[in-house]
Amino acid sequence: MSKFDNISPVDYRYFDEEVAKFLSDTAYTKYKLAVELALVKALAKRGICPPEALKDIEKACAEVTPEEACAEEEKTRHDIRALVNCIRAKVSDSAKPYVHMTATSYDIIDTANAARFRDVTREILVPALSDLEKTLIAIAEREAETVQVGRTHGQHAVPITFGYAIAGYVSRLGQSILALQDLAGQLKGKFSGAVGAYNASSLFFDDPEGFEKDVLAEMGLEPVESATQVTQPEPMARLMAEVTIAAGVMANLADDMRHLQRTEIGEIGEEFSATQVGSSTMPQKRNPINFENAKSLWKIIVPRIVTVFMDQISEHQRDLTNSASGRTYAETIAYTVSMAKRLTKTMQKISVDKAHLEANMALQKGMIAAEPLYILLASLGHPDAHEKVRTLTLETQKGGKSLEDVALADAELAPYLEKMADVQKNILKNPASYTGVAAEKAKKIAREWKKNLSL
Amino acid sequence: MSKFDNISPVDYRYFDEEVAKFLSDTAYTKYKLAVELALVKALAKRGICPPEALKDIEKACAEVTPEEACAEEEKTRHDIRALVNCIRAKVSDSAKPYVHMTATSYDIIDTANAARFRDVTREILVPALSDLEKTLIAIAEREAETVQVGRTHGQHAVPITFGYAIAGYVSRLGQSILALQDLAGQLKGKFSGAVGAYNASSLFFDDPEGFEKDVLAEMGLEPVESATQVTQPEPMARLMAEVTIAAGVMANLADDMRHLQRTEIGEIGEEFSATQVGSSTMPQKRNPINFENAKSLWKIIVPRIVTVFMDQISEHQRDLTNSASGRTYAETIAYTVSMAKRLTKTMQKISVDKAHLEANMALQKGMIAAEPLYILLASLGHPDAHEKVRTLTLETQKGGKSLEDVALADAELAPYLEKMADVQKNILKNPASYTGVAAEKAKKIAREWKKNLSL
Amino acid sequence: MSKFDNISPVDYRYFDEEVAKFLSDTAYTKYKLAVELALVKALAKRGICPPEALKDIEKACAEVTPEEACAEEEKTRHDIRALVNCIRAKVSDSAKPYVHMTATSYDIIDTANAARFRDVTREILVPALSDLEKTLIAIAEREAETVQVGRTHGQHAVPITFGYAIAGYVSRLGQSILALQDLAGQLKGKFSGAVGAYNASSLFFDDPEGFEKDVLAEMGLEPVESATQVTQPEPMARLMAEVTIAAGVMANLADDMRHLQRTEIGEIGEEFSATQVGSSTMPQKRNPINFENAKSLWKIIVPRIVTVFMDQISEHQRDLTNSASGRTYAETIAYTVSMAKRLTKTMQKISVDKAHLEANMALQKGMIAAEPLYILLASLGHPDAHEKVRTLTLETQKGGKSLEDVALADAELAPYLEKMADVQKNILKNPASYTGVAAEKAKKIAREWKKNLSL
Amino acid sequence: MSKFDNISPVDYRYFDEEVAKFLSDTAYTKYKLAVELALVKALAKRGICPPEALKDIEKACAEVTPEEACAEEEKTRHDIRALVNCIRAKVSDSAKPYVHMTATSYDIIDTANAARFRDVTREILVPALSDLEKTLIAIAEREAETVQVGRTHGQHAVPITFGYAIAGYVSRLGQSILALQDLAGQLKGKFSGAVGAYNASSLFFDDPEGFEKDVLAEMGLEPVESATQVTQPEPMARLMAEVTIAAGVMANLADDMRHLQRTEIGEIGEEFSATQVGSSTMPQKRNPINFENAKSLWKIIVPRIVTVFMDQISEHQRDLTNSASGRTYAETIAYTVSMAKRLTKTMQKISVDKAHLEANMALQKGMIAAEPLYILLASLGHPDAHEKVRTLTLETQKGGKSLEDVALADAELAPYLEKMADVQKNILKNPASYTGVAAEKAKKIAREWKKNLSL
Repeated sequence: MSKFDNISPVDYRYFDEEVAKFLSDTAYTKYKLAVELALVKALAKRGICPPEALKDIEKACAEVTPEEACAEEEKTRHDIRALVNCIRAKVSDSAKPYVHMTATSYDIIDTANAARFRDVTREILVPALSDLEKTLIAIAEREAETVQVGRTHGQHAVPITFGYAIAGYVSRLGQSILALQDLAGQLKGKFSGAVGAYNASSLFFDDPEGFEKDVLAEMGLEPVESATQVTQPEPMARLMAEVTIAAGVMANLADDMRHLQRTEIGEIGEEFSATQVGSSTMPQKRNPINFENAKSLWKIIVPRIVTVFMDQISEHQRDLTNSASGRTYAETIAYTVSMAKRLTKTMQKISVDKAHLEANMALQKGMIAAEPLYILLASLGHPDAHEKVRTLTLETQKGGKSLEDVALADAELAPYLEKMADVQKNILKNPASYTGVAAEKAKKIAREWKKNLSL
Repeated sequence: MSKFDNISPVDYRYFDEEVAKFLSDTAYTKYKLAVELALVKALAKRGICPPEALKDIEKACAEVTPEEACAEEEKTRHDIRALVNCIRAKVSDSAKPYVHMTATSYDIIDTANAARFRDVTREILVPALSDLEKTLIAIAEREAETVQVGRTHGQHAVPITFGYAIAGYVSRLGQSILALQDLAGQLKGKFSGAVGAYNASSLFFDDPEGFEKDVLAEMGLEPVESATQVTQPEPMARLMAEVTIAAGVMANLADDMRHLQRTEIGEIGEEFSATQVGSSTMPQKRNPINFENAKSLWKIIVPRIVTVFMDQISEHQRDLTNSASGRTYAETIAYTVSMAKRLTKTMQKISVDKAHLEANMALQKGMIAAEPLYILLASLGHPDAHEKVRTLTLETQKGGKSLEDVALADAELAPYLEKMADVQKNILKNPASYTGVAAEKAKKIAREWKKNLSL
Repeated sequence: MSKFDNISPVDYRYFDEEVAKFLSDTAYTKYKLAVELALVKALAKRGICPPEALKDIEKACAEVTPEEACAEEEKTRHDIRALVNCIRAKVSDSAKPYVHMTATSYDIIDTANAARFRDVTREILVPALSDLEKTLIAIAEREAETVQVGRTHGQHAVPITFGYAIAGYVSRLGQSILALQDLAGQLKGKFSGAVGAYNASSLFFDDPEGFEKDVLAEMGLEPVESATQVTQPEPMARLMAEVTIAAGVMANLADDMRHLQRTEIGEIGEEFSATQVGSSTMPQKRNPINFENAKSLWKIIVPRIVTVFMDQISEHQRDLTNSASGRTYAETIAYTVSMAKRLTKTMQKISVDKAHLEANMALQKGMIAAEPLYILLASLGHPDAHEKVRTLTLETQKGGKSLEDVALADAELAPYLEKMADVQKNILKNPASYTGVAAEKAKKIAREWKKNLSL
Repeated sequence: MSKFDNISPVDYRYFDEEVAKFLSDTAYTKYKLAVELALVKALAKRGICPPEALKDIEKACAEVTPEEACAEEEKTRHDIRALVNCIRAKVSDSAKPYVHMTATSYDIIDTANAARFRDVTREILVPALSDLEKTLIAIAEREAETVQVGRTHGQHAVPITFGYAIAGYVSRLGQSILALQDLAGQLKGKFSGAVGAYNASSLFFDDPEGFEKDVLAEMGLEPVESATQVTQPEPMARLMAEVTIAAGVMANLADDMRHLQRTEIGEIGEEFSATQVGSSTMPQKRNPINFENAKSLWKIIVPRIVTVFMDQISEHQRDLTNSASGRTYAETIAYTVSMAKRLTKTMQKISVDKAHLEANMALQKGMIAAEPLYILLASLGHPDAHEKVRTLTLETQKGGKSLEDVALADAELAPYLEKMADVQKNILKNPASYTGVAAEKAKKIAREWKKNLSL
């Protein structure tokens, strides 16, 4: 089978081996086997399962393959029973009773899921996002003083620095990384049996909840406070919501970057390899395909959170309607990792075009100083400063003069302009200096997040 | 590579070879090659491309593999340019100019997509749904007279027949099948170049729209009325919305069937194979896993329509943000086919438990006759029939007598009951006969849809 | 109560009286009363209800207010029973039996919903969209020859005309209008009683289906083929999906228009009233707020289709879980009408800035001719035209010369350039003439849709 | 205007005055005025604004009405400018300069939103959920020992207690309440001006970030770490996701409760008032309409989270496409409060039908003991216990004997049964005793959450 024979793009075009190590069906089987083994280890620690049986089972768990389990499932039509049969077939009769002892299928499945989603978050997703974070921090620092016109509604507003714009993403992404780390740790296992009341384990243990703790400790997990046949769906829903949020932050970054690459704006450039083709017919094209890809993946990711929230409902002690759907959560993680990795590579190589930044800043003949002019006039007692400046900008738009010149030529304004401090007047002359504390904040935020995430 | 190494369940657990024949990446490449070939055929018919060149290119198109194209894409970072390079590398220099002549990438991609989604709908999805429809028709006919208590709000209402309940799904699914057939035929191709204005083809043809028609005719497609670089997204959105609707009809059926299998209701049974296991710990369990699976797949399908609607937005003559996301539409089709096939197999073997149907009907001591009693009293001039009957049912609930007995013992009602026709009185005695025209309608609808769909 | 005391923006900021005439709760009550009356009219036509009783009931139906019905509902906790009680309280005892005779609540509710959604679609939504369509047609015609650089991936591609870009929306919106008209006509009524089997009406009529037809004919509706207590949800789902699609077309238009207004692009302008304020602090701002608003409304609309699809599932002969949710469909219609009306007003007054259009076209030193150059070279037998032109564009980007000059200076190209026809060579000199059939198609599409929609 | 003239059900049928106090447009205006005032107070504390001007502005802010602001907006087409004009019109000329000084619109709007969503969460939503929590705790304690058959896949599994089932919801809802409290506190204000870089405030203050802190402290808020024109969208997205999660927990509870009311199950009953009508035609109906309503509201709520996640994207220093959509978040809160209040009232009065609980437990002739039997046999060394018990249950299903009797009659099992402890054997005889630690856990969880939430 070639990967191109697959139907989901997550399995051909966006396939990622690192992610698959945790989230493929093969990996899932391994996690389920690890939980079956954790159970027997706990039994052994309590002196119930003899050491040879444990050894026997440990060996069997290392050998069972997804292919075997799948073949057995053809017969049993039950995935965990099939897995258990596969293990049992590989161990001595005396070891058999300890396999899956007191467990219900979802003790295995939900615990395996908690473990693999915790692991993939910690070992793949968070590192991938942290790489992007690190890249953004470096840009925020490097471009902290690079003046850029701020844009609201796609229109020139007042200036910022490019580093400050990036620092905003450092802050947002950083918080999401911290939240993901926290939420991965909130995933809980369960070992409370068919309806969550420890019915079966109570037959053998005085402290069935203690026994559950022992089993889960082998997986590095804590038990959920209360379960039905399945664990509470909310911790997973919270994790997936935060994954969606992280994807949203990246999509916003990607949108900004691709718009800054518009032919008419040209403030940043996506690196283009020597052999890369922009278009099959338009050889001059340099398309921001990596940023576009990020936005497209986001459109895949966002609606799928609804499936997760729908899965909160399971009737009584459970129905199975979250089974197929729960399998698709893995894809959302995979796409988010893909976004992060690709954006990191792309952001590492973006070029910042200072000439275009300056040319764009100059486009509006100093009108970006309208805000400080209005505010200063108002503070100096002008009775209707906003309206006054609004009419000055209309005049500027029509004529060939800059806002500064129009203002200086206005008799009514003269007494106010006289009262202004030099530093204030200077902003009219050089609106690009009107960047507030952008540069400092860019650096501060960069510093802060290097520390917060130990980057 | 084993299919278990995949991340998406559509590529392991729910993988379907029939669907993959149209919707895998390999299949997609074949469709794209078919469009490249269609172009050269049209060039040949117009005498532009010489016959030998056509032959040469035809051979090359049959040989290019997705693996080759993918390797070339590593270099070009452009999927269609890579494919074109692969074809060109296999043909003589004199044939090279005709490969991809005047075409832009999305002439190929969007036309290939229209063709493969049309084909998979007609050849796999509609037949799969029609198989289910046929199965439901057979049940509607077989159980047309099987009386069942109707349920609203999960409470017993008035009787229907089981066949009539199924006939409702025959009608709903049938309409969706017809709509899918229609919408598959509405998918359009395009061959109007980089921005949809036939810029390139106008260099060579007086009738570029005529040339577009020629190319698309090779694929059995008509041109879209107007395009940018890409075709209009709405015909695909309409098709995907209807796929979602078909899935919704099946999910509703599945929900009904699994509730009818509740231990306390037991009116139908899902066939259970001799070796099948219901639960890894509860050997008595007979779980409606096939119906639960259908519901779970539905939870995957529904939110994804949002991705499709998000893809309606593409800036100016197009941005690429619908590229990755557009690839996931194939999954929705695959899941819907999976639902249909599994439901067909399951419905073919459901057993209908007449004993339980009758026992359930008797549960409420004839109170399901409250409606006809109220209506007849009202029509006979009782001033407050609804309120009167409501109090009779409260009495019935408390005591041990049936509603008929309570009514007959009520002095106030005597004059009205006397006036009732025998057939009307009989309904009080035998509420199970109060099924209106359920049986006839079940048969009529079954007949109608056998005809409509030529089943 | 002031409208500002409301919580939903559809009831204060985006409140529209024309829509409310069909979709407010008051309007809903009127439609339900109209159905109750339609029933009695049908009874009268069959000679069952005497003329005086009909008159009596007609008068009562005209008098019942939502406030009365709501007060009665406090007691009955059942909305239709409350309405029926209100009617009955206003008529003579002899008329009482005919009120709601044989009907179940959802005979009234679903029929009322079909009627009001059909009416609002036909009388408000389609006209609002048609006004926008008309406006777009006028622009497509007026600007059919206005050359504009085509943009793919936000990068300059090859030229179109602005009228052609708008014609694309004419085509897409026109098709959605036709689909909405069709789907509004597909909404069906029902009068088949508590579980859809005509149980009650069979007590009185030999032809209960004929009686249903009579009642619905009074509302201008046809009966659904099969019902439970409720009508089939699919026709409404199809209508709502198409409403979402229409909103998507408008959102795409709005996105294009607001990006064309970016300070650096400036190809179109949104009209700004003399007293309008762009920003509370930046008096120079001219923000594309109407187009932004359209995009924002679209973000409200799209996800809500999921609620509609969720409502396809109703257990057995119905559960009530589509009741509250079904009430929110009205909002989606209202927001879509709001989008259409506001876009119409805004598009009617947009200004097209020819100077900016030309300046933008010139930005890339003729590189938009790279496509025709490559295609012509290829057709003239150049062995690697795409790659050759790609390197020429790299040279053009670096130096100060236009693509034409770079090409003319290239020795390797000389023999090919010589072979080109004058009209072909001219495109290198004047890339703005490379617009294919954009102008003609713009006019043709405009003509076509004026005819299709009789505008 | 009557509330019935509204289009959104949140403004007529589900209108809640307590919620409107925070989330109506009138309330929103009050919050915005409070922020404008907070700004002037901070100016006064720094000695910039004189006390009389503050007084003047305080009075004006108390007087401005939404109607006035709306009328002014007709002129300015800018909501905050309109509000500012309304304040300015009411104050002396000398106070005018301090109104809105250095602020940009979204300093006001985003800060007002943070404050009102924090307040409605703390003062209305969390208390409403806590009332439900308290009600559930009381049921968990009262019914801790009430044995109920556990159900998985709608099939009888092994026993729990009804109190334990409810305790599961106590645990899930409790965690969501804690999360909501936390997330409400995470909402941040901003006062950093038009592009978030403190451009304007830097003209007046050496410590513009300190000034921001001062202003926000008046509202009890902290500043966001980094902003554009708008605050970071993620804290609001996290809050809304958790609201959706809380709604999901309630919807699951509601689904369970309505299924337990099915005619055939009848384990709980929703209280029915003396005058309440179940159906307009079926007087005997007692429909679980409150639980159905909760499910229906959930279908409204869940998809709307997608709008919130879509609003994470705002181009550059902001676009306005989150403005209309952001207004709809209020509805989601309102619907969730409605769910909570209605469920509380309904759960307070549910009746638990012990007779039906016991009858249902007996339905399967002791087969719910299949699990313990299998597990005990396995632990006693039976080589294929699961398969053995599976065949016993098939026999039990066919015949008239209980599983216990079938097991006792089975020769192969005799040696194992002999080895069982009395307490183990007893479970075969009385499967209802097989409830594990359900009762204790129910009480423990109830205790825990009374403490956690100080209920």
